[in-house]
Amino acid sequence: MLNPQRTIDELKELRAITGDDDGAQRVAWTDTWATARDWLHEKLSNLPVTLERDPAGNDWATLKGASEKELLIGGHMDSVPNGGWLDGCLNVLAGLEVLRRIASEGTPPVTVRLVDWADEEGARFGRSLVGSSACSGTLDPQKEIAHLKDKDGIPLPTALANFNVHLDTMKGAHSQLKNAKAYLELHIEQGPVLESMDLPLGAVIGTYGVERHAIRFIGQAAHAGSTPMDKRKDAFAAAAKLGLEIRPIAVRHHGVCTVGSVVTRPGIVTAVVGECDITLDQRNMDAGELAAMLQEAVEASQRFAAEEKCEVEWNRIWQIQPIPFDPHLIDLCDQAIMETVGVSHRLPSGPLHDAPEMQRAGVPTVMMFVQSLRGISHNKIEDTKEEHIALSVQALDRLATKTIDWILSQ
Amino acid sequence: MLNPQRTIDELKELRAITGDDDGAQRVAWTDTWATARDWLHEKLSNLPVTLERDPAGNDWATLKGASEKELLIGGHMDSVPNGGWLDGCLNVLAGLEVLRRIASEGTPPVTVRLVDWADEEGARFGRSLVGSSACSGTLDPQKEIAHLKDKDGIPLPTALANFNVHLDTMKGAHSQLKNAKAYLELHIEQGPVLESMDLPLGAVIGTYGVERHAIRFIGQAAHAGSTPMDKRKDAFAAAAKLGLEIRPIAVRHHGVCTVGSVVTRPGIVTAVVGECDITLDQRNMDAGELAAMLQEAVEASQRFAAEEKCEVEWNRIWQIQPIPFDPHLIDLCDQAIMETVGVSHRLPSGPLHDAPEMQRAGVPTVMMFVQSLRGISHNKIEDTKEEHIALSVQALDRLATKTIDWILSQ
Repeated sequence: MLNPQRTIDELKELRAITGDDDGAQRVAWTDTWATARDWLHEKLSNLPVTLERDPAGNDWATLKGASEKELLIGGHMDSVPNGGWLDGCLNVLAGLEVLRRIASEGTPPVTVRLVDWADEEGARFGRSLVGSSACSGTLDPQKEIAHLKDKDGIPLPTALANFNVHLDTMKGAHSQLKNAKAYLELHIEQGPVLESMDLPLGAVIGTYGVERHAIRFIGQAAHAGSTPMDKRKDAFAAAAKLGLEIRPIAVRHHGVCTVGSVVTRPGIVTAVVGECDITLDQRNMDAGELAAMLQEAVEASQRFAAEEKCEVEWNRIWQIQPIPFDPHLIDLCDQAIMETVGVSHRLPSGPLHDAPEMQRAGVPTVMMFVQSLRGISHNKIEDTKEEHIALSVQALDRLATKTIDWILSQ
Repeated sequence: MLNPQRTIDELKELRAITGDDDGAQRVAWTDTWATARDWLHEKLSNLPVTLERDPAGNDWATLKGASEKELLIGGHMDSVPNGGWLDGCLNVLAGLEVLRRIASEGTPPVTVRLVDWADEEGARFGRSLVGSSACSGTLDPQKEIAHLKDKDGIPLPTALANFNVHLDTMKGAHSQLKNAKAYLELHIEQGPVLESMDLPLGAVIGTYGVERHAIRFIGQAAHAGSTPMDKRKDAFAAAAKLGLEIRPIAVRHHGVCTVGSVVTRPGIVTAVVGECDITLDQRNMDAGELAAMLQEAVEASQRFAAEEKCEVEWNRIWQIQPIPFDPHLIDLCDQAIMETVGVSHRLPSGPLHDAPEMQRAGVPTVMMFVQSLRGISHNKIEDTKEEHIALSVQALDRLATKTIDWILSQ
């Protein structure tokens, strides 16, 4: 029988052994992370599962079913430094409880596997989703991560080798997916939407596509006292106009746009700003809308630069296409939530997660979100009501049952 | 006979002995500054003047006239590090040439004095106008400068003592003004107004009053991906609105307003800005208009903060009242310019100068500006056309003659 209270108790137990006064410290490729994973192995050792670490460092627990077809449930034990008590490990421990419930009923009709992805956060070396992207096949280890060092100068390959993970073999993890028919992941929302709607749970329709750019406006530094208003080439004025204009652009295209960093040069009280660097982060669930948001922002920046007698330069920092989750699994997720709490809501995911890597690898995928208090995560004050955690374990369990039926029907 | 070309030659001579590849290096209270002042003393020693260093370190050359009433002409030999070839010393060397012309005609009707103010720039210790404000009486040495240190940790009192200037006696310089009836100062504009109007010379109506504030908008840092546009408390959006709103405020009140520095926190590409610090510098020739500009900016900031669900805090960095120059001397300056180049223009001064200290001390004062190329100063590329320098020496000489007549008429 499913026991959601046990998940809450285990979350607290994990917090006690891998956190401190500043929060969770389960940074991937560290001793504390190893402690957390050993603790999980011990919990799993009481179940009729086989345990395996793949070449990318992902930990798999397999409950053999009547069919070779596999349902995957995943999460990550690693956290950011000074992190919260839920981000990542809620998914794993909720999955563990679902696995217990299924195992308690004898051999399941399909094989059920719990995966603890290695290094979702990228907190130590700066590259997120290391384990899941090695497994999905989207990671190019030599090109993307071989050169990375942590803040103490330790190379990533050295740190990974301590965990028996080697760059030239880690993509072998891909073979783990050969029988995978569906992937489920529960996560705290890490945003304010469900709380603002007073809803415990939501079905995630996919992850945003992202366009991330560094934009430089170049005007002319000038004396704040001796330069009349109509003689200025004020780079900050152009940047301020763009900072405001991105908001109607976001609303028009049902996405989000953020100016997160502003740097002014010379940046002193007595000088008109000669150069202003801003960052722009744009996200949308639709690739066409995302492209339109970018184009409109570029055009607006050029218009504002001209108005302020400035020049503007764009440099792309990063981009990724939207990754929509499986439509049928989104429906099942919605149903499972409805049956558990009577009301559901569909929303996109802003933050990165391992789940889209599974969708990209061709495994039908969906995520379920549980409400975050104050929308805060990556911080020790990250929290979710215990009653909502319990409901999320129940809903995930319902979703697993529905998904097994769906796999069998194929 | 006045020889403006000699002024240009002497400016180049001074540049050769006190500058390097990076520009002028006559920073006050340094050996290079002392070299420049010794060079000036040598030039003055050929004239029938008495030389004196006052207790604040200001150098005075006095050409005794038939009357004890005094006309003062002033400037400063000191420069910023890597400074230009004109800022400060043009005034002194043009004054030197005017003094030569007057001396060549025998005993003048009034006493004429050339003053080289000590440490106008404040480049080494951060406090401008040290010598002139000690003389005017507006400086409180123990309170304002006793604690200052240069970047190497050398205390200001130690550096000044090397030049025989002591904090407890320096205000004795005030007695230099007891017979002063007028003060004249020629300076490069350090701004773009005269160049943009294609005018060589302008009459300065006074120095702006200044209100300088640090403004902090406090919103809520939030994830750029998971936080919908209508759920944000974006501190940068509020700051951007204010950055644009200060411009119509400035235009409406015939002043200038500048946001020179913008700092965002957390200041990363993936987070809505939780805190945004900006600086606001507002300047106006009219105290009432300055107060109105400040009040309107405060009200606008509160309105924008409310719109963006943020809070706003203001902290004053500095303020000074407008200092209008003497109306009759402004008229005389205008006439001298008209007679020299056929066209004049009245404009306020944005940067600080020694001249307003004389006006504050009750000495009728005016400044004359000569065009700056590209409006740039405090930089080795600071420049003014030689033909304009020559015209400025002629116009200053005409203004000196008119001012002597005016002093005699009182």
